[in-house]
Amino acid sequence: MGDSDIRARIEEANTEALRRMLSAQPVLVDVMPLSAFDPSVTGLSLTHSGPPVTWARMSGAQRGAVYAAASYEGWAASREETDVLAASGRIRFIPNHALRGVGPMAGVVSPSMHVWVVQDKVTGKCSYSSTEYDAFFGAYDDEALDELRRWNRIIYPAIGRALRSMGGLELKPLMTQALTMGDELHSRQVAASALLAKRLAAAIVRTSSVEDAAATLTELAENELTFLPVSMAACKVTLLAAEGIPYCTVVTAMARNGTDFGIRVSSLGDRWFVAPAPDVQGVFFPGYGPGDAGPDIGDSAITETNGLGAFAAAAAPAIAGLVGSSPSELIAYSREMRAITVGTNPNFGIPQLDFEGTATGIDLRKVVQTGIAPIIDTASAHKDPGHRIVGAGTSRAPLACFQAALEAWAKQYLHQA
Amino acid sequence: MGDSDIRARIEEANTEALRRMLSAQPVLVDVMPLSAFDPSVTGLSLTHSGPPVTWARMSGAQRGAVYAAASYEGWAASREETDVLAASGRIRFIPNHALRGVGPMAGVVSPSMHVWVVQDKVTGKCSYSSTEYDAFFGAYDDEALDELRRWNRIIYPAIGRALRSMGGLELKPLMTQALTMGDELHSRQVAASALLAKRLAAAIVRTSSVEDAAATLTELAENELTFLPVSMAACKVTLLAAEGIPYCTVVTAMARNGTDFGIRVSSLGDRWFVAPAPDVQGVFFPGYGPGDAGPDIGDSAITETNGLGAFAAAAAPAIAGLVGSSPSELIAYSREMRAITVGTNPNFGIPQLDFEGTATGIDLRKVVQTGIAPIIDTASAHKDPGHRIVGAGTSRAPLACFQAALEAWAKQYLHQA
Repeated sequence: MGDSDIRARIEEANTEALRRMLSAQPVLVDVMPLSAFDPSVTGLSLTHSGPPVTWARMSGAQRGAVYAAASYEGWAASREETDVLAASGRIRFIPNHALRGVGPMAGVVSPSMHVWVVQDKVTGKCSYSSTEYDAFFGAYDDEALDELRRWNRIIYPAIGRALRSMGGLELKPLMTQALTMGDELHSRQVAASALLAKRLAAAIVRTSSVEDAAATLTELAENELTFLPVSMAACKVTLLAAEGIPYCTVVTAMARNGTDFGIRVSSLGDRWFVAPAPDVQGVFFPGYGPGDAGPDIGDSAITETNGLGAFAAAAAPAIAGLVGSSPSELIAYSREMRAITVGTNPNFGIPQLDFEGTATGIDLRKVVQTGIAPIIDTASAHKDPGHRIVGAGTSRAPLACFQAALEAWAKQYLHQA
Repeated sequence: MGDSDIRARIEEANTEALRRMLSAQPVLVDVMPLSAFDPSVTGLSLTHSGPPVTWARMSGAQRGAVYAAASYEGWAASREETDVLAASGRIRFIPNHALRGVGPMAGVVSPSMHVWVVQDKVTGKCSYSSTEYDAFFGAYDDEALDELRRWNRIIYPAIGRALRSMGGLELKPLMTQALTMGDELHSRQVAASALLAKRLAAAIVRTSSVEDAAATLTELAENELTFLPVSMAACKVTLLAAEGIPYCTVVTAMARNGTDFGIRVSSLGDRWFVAPAPDVQGVFFPGYGPGDAGPDIGDSAITETNGLGAFAAAAAPAIAGLVGSSPSELIAYSREMRAITVGTNPNFGIPQLDFEGTATGIDLRKVVQTGIAPIIDTASAHKDPGHRIVGAGTSRAPLACFQAALEAWAKQYLHQA
């Protein structure tokens, strides 16, 4: 093929990827233990965020989450016992993305922990995400473990019963509405979480005991990030639809494990293209400063990969303080991202941009050509295990991932050495 | 006193009025029948929105609401019987404002109908408002009456039990948050209604039967205007604090009954200054056109009187389509209103204005001097009884009300004839 033939082939493939992303119909269908979502996850198995990583190279927050999970599952009685167990190689560490799932921050899910399950009604594919526990920032104290127990014994089961009785909950209309209510559906989920709470409430009452219903509705009233994992799983299942298109240069995943940042590309299968995880630029919460934060972490950049989060920052002026920018800077971010995407998503109109859609479908080629790195809204975990959230801000995806992926693409499709 | 002394006296009075408005701490404390809120409302008594009006001059929507209320209370079996009863002079018509309350659209509340009760923790004063029923647009068919019964027999009692068990709900933080979530707290109440729903949910479950709790939570999930009467009562109780300050030229109420538009002023007691109610500029819903709408109606302009609604329009870009303007026009409205107010409300920061507060405390003098009429977000009722909502848009308060009030002020304080 000549150059123009190849360009046409890529354009066609990328247009198809965007079309599939825009057509997805994510529905929140259930919550269930991870071992029920994927029966291959048994025994000493733990998932984690980002590209594959070994225990030896694992970030502090992820190691803290492993301490919490090992304690929660009863595999080890202390941090020291977990260290020995993990160093022995007996724990199988699996990236969430390898299971078609995602997890915020450390993203460490054990077999018996529940996950939110989202299905795309168009493809029938399912994805999952876990709630963002304190344990996912690396905390493994009694309070962090109590949170895991409360969610998995009371709150998740109540929500699961409600969802099954409702026959699931369509997510696209809810997400579209939340974007008109100040959420960018990554760092800010206040509106989406409130909308989710009110839509589940009656069904929770009908299917749970008064005590469990009250506890669950209290959690939904107080937790302003309930929707984060739902948003993430909706974005992941949307991007699953865009995988496996030959010649396509659309990025289908961006994820970090606190050590490495990795991306995947539609036409390049399950391969990860990695570079060191970047630092987070932003603000620190009281008691913490720049020396405390570990590098960027979490699968939550799946929201930016689907045109939300920082790509939709204009929609969320209230996060300006949190991410260290002004509302007008947020609008500039949303506009800047259009230079590196295939198009925009008319389902996700942003009021602050006169209801123009979010920049959607990151094109590998455009990132490399323009040198504009995708921007990501994010939270900071501590560099060491044992802490909760230390700050929030933005990060930029490392250009090296995109350069490596473009080289691999050229090798595969242009047969360049 | 010389001119400059008088000016100083007015400035001081107006500053005090604004200070009191900003200091108010409205709390949603209960719901109860109107006759419990004010025991003087017994027998054949009905409240209505706007300044005083007789049956002979009453607008179509208000007459329709009277048909619904008379039927609901069992005073009459038909529209014709109600016509005879009303024409006989036996029904006592009371403006809501005369009872320190407010009501959306027709605002026709009968003794046994429930109202939301808001108390200002600073002054101890209470105000009320009623939910915006279809009957308040003038509908009096079986479906409209069923809505009245469902609210008053199931939903209001469930919410009342919940509120009492919670010891009330602070409204200012909720309203502040809703302004960052796309509400202007008059025509758009999507965020505030969702926040209210999630905050009440657990208490509703704990204090109602499963059946009543589920019915109530379903209503709260589906109704995006639940917070309208709460917002109105919060604004009314806030403005009660600013009443009765000598020399003060701050407007403490704007209200319409579908025939007349009236205002009240802090230093001028309970007097109304009226002019014909204006037409609504905006859009019509399917099946209706310009010839169908009656003049502007409702006590809901109390939100604009407190710096919300159209004064905060910039916060709600999603209503641009509804009120027939663009998001940038909405920002212009919010800026324009600063020319006629005493100041701004730092509690009510608008993200789209870089978190500057809403223009608050309409100064009679500035309205007359600039010729800028307060703008009001509003809905349209039909000119005849028997219809539901026909459209939405904005109206402008008639300047004649402000001129008449300023003349009365001059007569009282400058002893001008």
